[in-house]
Amino acid sequence: MRLADLPTPALVLDRARLRRNVQAMTERYKKLGIRLRPHLKTAKSADVARMAVSGHFGGITVSTLKEAEHFAANGFRDILYAVCIAPSKLGQAAALVKSGATLTIVTDDLDAAKAIAARGAGLGVVFDVLIEVDCGEHRSGIPVDSDALMAIGGELHAGPGSRLAGIMVHAGHSYACRSLEAVAEIAEAERSAGVRAAERLRAAGLPAATVSMGSTPTALHGRNYDGITEVRCGVYMFGDLFQSEIGSCGKDDIAVSVLSSVIGQRRSENRVLIDAGFLALSKDRSTANTPHDVGFGRVADLSGGLGLGDVTVVGVHQEHGMVEGRTPLPFDRLPVGARVRVLPNHACITSAAYDRYHVIDGSDEIVAVWPRCNGW
Amino acid sequence: MRLADLPTPALVLDRARLRRNVQAMTERYKKLGIRLRPHLKTAKSADVARMAVSGHFGGITVSTLKEAEHFAANGFRDILYAVCIAPSKLGQAAALVKSGATLTIVTDDLDAAKAIAARGAGLGVVFDVLIEVDCGEHRSGIPVDSDALMAIGGELHAGPGSRLAGIMVHAGHSYACRSLEAVAEIAEAERSAGVRAAERLRAAGLPAATVSMGSTPTALHGRNYDGITEVRCGVYMFGDLFQSEIGSCGKDDIAVSVLSSVIGQRRSENRVLIDAGFLALSKDRSTANTPHDVGFGRVADLSGGLGLGDVTVVGVHQEHGMVEGRTPLPFDRLPVGARVRVLPNHACITSAAYDRYHVIDGSDEIVAVWPRCNGW
Repeated sequence: MRLADLPTPALVLDRARLRRNVQAMTERYKKLGIRLRPHLKTAKSADVARMAVSGHFGGITVSTLKEAEHFAANGFRDILYAVCIAPSKLGQAAALVKSGATLTIVTDDLDAAKAIAARGAGLGVVFDVLIEVDCGEHRSGIPVDSDALMAIGGELHAGPGSRLAGIMVHAGHSYACRSLEAVAEIAEAERSAGVRAAERLRAAGLPAATVSMGSTPTALHGRNYDGITEVRCGVYMFGDLFQSEIGSCGKDDIAVSVLSSVIGQRRSENRVLIDAGFLALSKDRSTANTPHDVGFGRVADLSGGLGLGDVTVVGVHQEHGMVEGRTPLPFDRLPVGARVRVLPNHACITSAAYDRYHVIDGSDEIVAVWPRCNGW
Repeated sequence: MRLADLPTPALVLDRARLRRNVQAMTERYKKLGIRLRPHLKTAKSADVARMAVSGHFGGITVSTLKEAEHFAANGFRDILYAVCIAPSKLGQAAALVKSGATLTIVTDDLDAAKAIAARGAGLGVVFDVLIEVDCGEHRSGIPVDSDALMAIGGELHAGPGSRLAGIMVHAGHSYACRSLEAVAEIAEAERSAGVRAAERLRAAGLPAATVSMGSTPTALHGRNYDGITEVRCGVYMFGDLFQSEIGSCGKDDIAVSVLSSVIGQRRSENRVLIDAGFLALSKDRSTANTPHDVGFGRVADLSGGLGLGDVTVVGVHQEHGMVEGRTPLPFDRLPVGARVRVLPNHACITSAAYDRYHVIDGSDEIVAVWPRCNGW
């Protein structure tokens, strides 16, 4: 089957670009001598995960326990669930540990730490736990210099059902940077926060073997990772228009796109309609505040090239995308039935609308269909 | 099982509210003597569809052929696929017709009409086709007074593989109204455009038995439906915060919500974190330009009540929602592990993240689990 034969909309994954993106990050961390723990929240695919861990120790990061179960069932044994856990999820987490997975969980809350330490024993497991510290994003994580860090560390170390594994830190605010210099500064803040938190624990006689940091920008553009034991990142595998805007990839590196059909023309308004709307593309507007606002996605031709001109999806309804150009659209190339590929603002959210990837590799032939693990 | 026991995030459907919303619309159109053809693009559920068609002729509207197949397999035989069809989908549409469904398709393009008329014969079917006309939204549909209307009508009437069934019109721009008076005006523009287009066809000796109009606001607030043969609407079944802002429902009518767990507190910032982020809630910001901007959703307590105060989701990451209040949050009611329910800005997009509804009806007990039909 070829791209021209697929029902639309459909999610296309360019394996050649994926391979190149994955290999670049793998090589970087091999050279740095630091363990790479790829984050699978973007790809949610065992096929992609196998490429991403190749050349490293095999550990992965996930954002849901459903992903953890999916990857464990596909042979991945060392899994970090990198979202602070709600105590109601401990039974599900314990079942994974009992199945043989090395599952590490995360908290930044003293009451949750007490629940983990207490309930692990009753569930018949000892949970490996990282404490999340904040390095400036102010999303989750406690302050590095807080009393809470030591209190949580003490609970997790002493508890019968928990083992203090170390520190996790995430510089999500690196996405707000508009220069690589600024990203490098945030990477250093992320590194130093993680290392300082671990040192505080160790100085108090508490273990902190792991210091885990990461986001795609800070994984790519940090200058110093001293004291860091592993780096997490995910969207680098696919890239997207927002990552391109902040310097994490080029437009030619973007590995996922939405295959769509033209379903209408409005020549008087220099517009065509496609069958990819907000369900197929998402309502993500990450590029709105970047130098190149591409609306709900940049429109490429069937080959993935940008030869149609500066053409973007300017509006979305549920199953309609409104496509306009800055210059007159090449309507003869865009009759009803013509196919285009929409590059996403944000690969994580656009991909989540699909239950599978249609994989291409150097041509328009579908060489594989890879399932995704969505939902909770 | 009760709401307190469900893994989070999860989609909750309040059947009592759903029933009330559905019955009100059913009664309205029974009294008006007009056929109601509920749009299932929001619910994507055969269980909901059975409630929505009760008391009417049984016809439904869908936004994808996958929905059409799902509903046909569940016993619904009269289905309008209300998005202009890409010719590559005609084979899939023909298979549905051959399976016994009365499927009506839509176009607004002369070349597509020619393809439908020609290919139907080869596929062994005669397609029933509505012509979409524009009533001011300028999304899809041709102008009522255009030559194209007559040309498309002629092709569909003469073609061996098509039957001209009439006119479809949709006033999606009713969503931009901020008063019921303005909605009523747009409903009249929608009605009159549909009726005028049908009259033009009939005056030329072409058939136009069906004149189908509808959107939830214009279905609720139109004053005159003369000449209209059926009305389509969908989001009225669930309601949402945006529909509440534009007067289509009250907040107490909103039937879907996202059950979520608190996973962190940041008291210094008057904030808690929940495990519902942009995948669980979507990035829809429909209320941004309404009098009550609720960010990414309004936060209710486990009962669905608004007793936590004016509390909203102010930011979303993939699996994190940042919840803040205009007044100090009741942190004692929101410890890590506490459960809340987030009312959505836009029921259609938030629901699409889930493969099932957890149904409640007057208590916190889950009385049913209803599957959804997502994707393409």
